[in-house]
Amino acid sequence: MSIAVVGTVALDTVKTPLGKRVQMLGGSAVHFAMAARLFTRVNLVAVVGNDFPSRHIAFLQRKGIKLTSLLIDDGKTFQWSGEYKDDLNTAITLRTELGVLLQFRPLLSEAERRLKYLFLANIDPDIQRRVLESMYAPRLIALDSMNYWIRHKKKSLLKLLEKVDMYVANDQEARLLSGEYNLIKAARALERFGPATVLIKKGEHGVLLYSKKFIFSIPAYPTDRVVDPTGAGDTFAGGFMGSLAQSKTINNSALKRAIACGAVAASFNVEAFGLEKTARLTRLDLRRRLAYFRQIATF
Amino acid sequence: MSIAVVGTVALDTVKTPLGKRVQMLGGSAVHFAMAARLFTRVNLVAVVGNDFPSRHIAFLQRKGIKLTSLLIDDGKTFQWSGEYKDDLNTAITLRTELGVLLQFRPLLSEAERRLKYLFLANIDPDIQRRVLESMYAPRLIALDSMNYWIRHKKKSLLKLLEKVDMYVANDQEARLLSGEYNLIKAARALERFGPATVLIKKGEHGVLLYSKKFIFSIPAYPTDRVVDPTGAGDTFAGGFMGSLAQSKTINNSALKRAIACGAVAASFNVEAFGLEKTARLTRLDLRRRLAYFRQIATF
Repeated sequence: MSIAVVGTVALDTVKTPLGKRVQMLGGSAVHFAMAARLFTRVNLVAVVGNDFPSRHIAFLQRKGIKLTSLLIDDGKTFQWSGEYKDDLNTAITLRTELGVLLQFRPLLSEAERRLKYLFLANIDPDIQRRVLESMYAPRLIALDSMNYWIRHKKKSLLKLLEKVDMYVANDQEARLLSGEYNLIKAARALERFGPATVLIKKGEHGVLLYSKKFIFSIPAYPTDRVVDPTGAGDTFAGGFMGSLAQSKTINNSALKRAIACGAVAASFNVEAFGLEKTARLTRLDLRRRLAYFRQIATF
Repeated sequence: MSIAVVGTVALDTVKTPLGKRVQMLGGSAVHFAMAARLFTRVNLVAVVGNDFPSRHIAFLQRKGIKLTSLLIDDGKTFQWSGEYKDDLNTAITLRTELGVLLQFRPLLSEAERRLKYLFLANIDPDIQRRVLESMYAPRLIALDSMNYWIRHKKKSLLKLLEKVDMYVANDQEARLLSGEYNLIKAARALERFGPATVLIKKGEHGVLLYSKKFIFSIPAYPTDRVVDPTGAGDTFAGGFMGSLAQSKTINNSALKRAIACGAVAASFNVEAFGLEKTARLTRLDLRRRLAYFRQIATF
């Protein structure tokens, strides 16, 4: 089943202890799509400026990502610039230029409005809401956000949470929005805001899934080659939703498998800058690492 | 197979956001023994002062812990006093009174010197060495330590690491001793110091086992009732060694099961002050939670 994803397409400048890259292709929707494409067709709903290099368009198309709803607007593409220090866990944002994101009005084709899987990747919650409202009858709606929106558009975000099935947050965001430090308590509080399922991403410490009837916890795939964690959370979500969109029914075992797929996809993402590794990834690479992960993380 | 454990017996005063307890029975060897006793016989090698309440002696005996080598020396029992703030992750030490620990010369009986399983719980590495050297032919020797000894007796500790099979450290200790931030790199560096197997305890984030041929990673058992984490690491080690001492052969699957047993034992420990929960624990309680843990943490 195809997935529609709305989120950002960005030009990322990233510095880590292992090197630097200038204006790489990035953004929440792109990282998500790069992982989800391994499972199913992905329709990208996003905006770029007229400065956006055409080679990036060609690249996304080569990866099989549908660009029908990628708007090319007058202005500059969204740019993010950040740095990671030794611990490689927290990004320090150096510069953000929203550019064409400021006037983004998503426009979905009739076919896209009929899709059954919708991922609202990190972007202004008012934009997420507009896309959500334009869908006819999605079967599964998941949402990701970030600290900035929790602080500055909390009301919009809370209204949106009432309408989604799954909320994907990292530990800091979950604590900030719920006011609870313990992550199970935080997840329980977030579940009361609306989403039946809450996923808390803990970076190098793995993922916790919480729902009223079911808890699931896995570690991250252990890798010693952390080069650039930018987009790891979006890559996780892409692997997770991709795997779910491929499952016949969404039961506990499908959820477990989907989380493991997400964790494995994210592990490839952090092992290189930007999309350098996930762009070359095949379904077989993912399956192989998933098998090894199962071996070293289940008892 | 019986286990000998050398470590501290302490009177702990602990304050957490959920309450306070004054001069509870604690210490690395006691927390270890309280978990390991669920699997096998445990011989406690330690010292207390002549102020040590006799009810604690009676209590340990009731729990089936062998006290042949518990010395009662002239002086005060080791006291530790600490506080945990909201995050309940890091203990702030308020006061330490070593008392009789300062002059502790462990003395093992002939029968104890023949035991096959030895756990060197957190205590001065020179004391750990003395116990290790008094053993005839232990099959498995594991060691735990702490930041203080890494900083102040690094040389003694490194010499000792050459002689042990397993080193159990928390993430901070592993980083401090190895100089590596990434935990897999840290474990690899520690393995080069001698121990074939390195276990890194990540608190609420679970445990990583590293050996040259085998990696294993599990999350912590997810609990929302964290009351007092004091002794969680020692309780983990007790469940881990206890399970191993019961296994016929120490292969990968025995190691996996042992780590899961340790994680489950530790989860009970944090749910109450001191030994309040682990003292009442039965083998069946542990087995039940282990079965549930398997269900929510394997895929």
